[in-house]
Amino acid sequence: MKSIKVYCPGSVANLSCGFDILGLCLDNVGDEMTVSIINEPVLKLDFCDGYKVTSDIKKNAATVSANALLKSYKKLDFGFNISINKKIKPGSGIGSSAASSAGSVFAINKLLGEPFSKMELIKFASEGEFACTQSYHADNISAVLLGGITLVRDNTTLDIVRLNSPIELFVTIIHPQIEIKTSDSRAIIGRKIEISKLTEQASNLGALISALYTEDYELISRSIKDIIAEPYRSELIPEFNNLKQIALENGSIGFGISGSGPSMFSLSKGPENANKVKRKLEDYLNKKNLDFKSYVSAVNDEGIKII
Amino acid sequence: MKSIKVYCPGSVANLSCGFDILGLCLDNVGDEMTVSIINEPVLKLDFCDGYKVTSDIKKNAATVSANALLKSYKKLDFGFNISINKKIKPGSGIGSSAASSAGSVFAINKLLGEPFSKMELIKFASEGEFACTQSYHADNISAVLLGGITLVRDNTTLDIVRLNSPIELFVTIIHPQIEIKTSDSRAIIGRKIEISKLTEQASNLGALISALYTEDYELISRSIKDIIAEPYRSELIPEFNNLKQIALENGSIGFGISGSGPSMFSLSKGPENANKVKRKLEDYLNKKNLDFKSYVSAVNDEGIKII
Repeated sequence: MKSIKVYCPGSVANLSCGFDILGLCLDNVGDEMTVSIINEPVLKLDFCDGYKVTSDIKKNAATVSANALLKSYKKLDFGFNISINKKIKPGSGIGSSAASSAGSVFAINKLLGEPFSKMELIKFASEGEFACTQSYHADNISAVLLGGITLVRDNTTLDIVRLNSPIELFVTIIHPQIEIKTSDSRAIIGRKIEISKLTEQASNLGALISALYTEDYELISRSIKDIIAEPYRSELIPEFNNLKQIALENGSIGFGISGSGPSMFSLSKGPENANKVKRKLEDYLNKKNLDFKSYVSAVNDEGIKII
Repeated sequence: MKSIKVYCPGSVANLSCGFDILGLCLDNVGDEMTVSIINEPVLKLDFCDGYKVTSDIKKNAATVSANALLKSYKKLDFGFNISINKKIKPGSGIGSSAASSAGSVFAINKLLGEPFSKMELIKFASEGEFACTQSYHADNISAVLLGGITLVRDNTTLDIVRLNSPIELFVTIIHPQIEIKTSDSRAIIGRKIEISKLTEQASNLGALISALYTEDYELISRSIKDIIAEPYRSELIPEFNNLKQIALENGSIGFGISGSGPSMFSLSKGPENANKVKRKLEDYLNKKNLDFKSYVSAVNDEGIKII
């Protein structure tokens, strides 16, 4: 039986000013997935350890995206078993569904001899994202499949740009153990905004992208701002403003909500600063008796990979 | 009598997706300004050739910005005469007021031994822009004073980023001889937009900035889109849609309204393509008996300079 095991990394969508546009691939947080060829021409799904999510083949992100791939390929006389060790908690805001959506199509593509490009895999994986979130958004899956920091120029044609990742950029993730549904989080965003707000948000995004290329950490810091989603979504996350302040006073160059939350991300120059941010936030949350998980990660330039 | 002559280039603001954010400095279109030290501690203004604009010291862009500079400097026992040969028609959309606003402060700063930084000059020049347009916007003056392509991250603190200019990027300018007031042009923009439109406009801006650094002309082409201002402003410009189509079919990689119009810009890879676009648009406009001026220009990386 031919089989492949892949590391399906977590990811941070938005990065504050890049609402529904940017994604960043993590290095230190991710699922493991084993995909094996089976004799029957069907998809099977099981979970070994980790968090359990739906095992309904028609609803699970991994099998929905796998099905999308298989529909675009010639008819096979064999099938696949997908076994997931889910380490990223669903609803965390660090791309749990994206890890599954991308993992299955990446692994099956490898087992088939790579008939599809990474850009095609993004298309298939976006079906898995849709199954979980009821919206097509490629920000997380692009980062997972391409690695590094990615920009979705066009969500319909899936025109994706891989940006430069400054070498010393490190991420601290704080994941409070509370649940916010992505759909709830999307609903609270005011649906119309003034053009001046567009200019403010877009100019920060533009400056951030320039800063990623010139590796200008001070400009990164001035650009990590979100006037669109954060003012609303942060109200759903206990202690958000205090955590942000503590982070920025202790080595963070930018702090915001990861995806639709509740996880928060902080960017730092170098691992020492990222670890200092992690320690200080941990101390504060422990004092407040709040439950959380925390990680420090480099930007994962390789993205999803065979292990 | 000590005196200095400067070339005050025209500029293209917005570049479609960078509404109120981006500016590009032109090479081939600009005013000339001679600033001379005079014995009286006053500002004087005259025009030699070229277009005439207000000679009211309290209203003219060049003298308003010069006054802003002088107020920030120690009291002088001498003054300046500013003589403008205005070659950029006011109301053209290629930064006529910015050229004057920037020119006077650049020249006076040189005559004073450069006590002010370029970023400070942008602050003074924005007063001249305000006098002409009743709004503070630094997109044109930043491009004129810093050269190349610039991004205004924050219009209040004047946090300006100079971006990379791809070496083969050339601009064609078509200036129809009609008048649109900037204030009219600003008024017609719908004041509230949906968040999905923000995402679309901002993702194009982000992709464009990435493409400027990676010198990816195809991505530049896919990113030069404006869903905010162009749908409204283009209605004020006769033949806009036809001109855009002709340009894009004849070597243009992006076409849009320069600033608030009526001038239009086209981007091309290489001077041959830019000249072909110019010829084709000229042919069409001549057939339609429409009056216009046209230019081809490299991106002016140096910006304003002594001649």
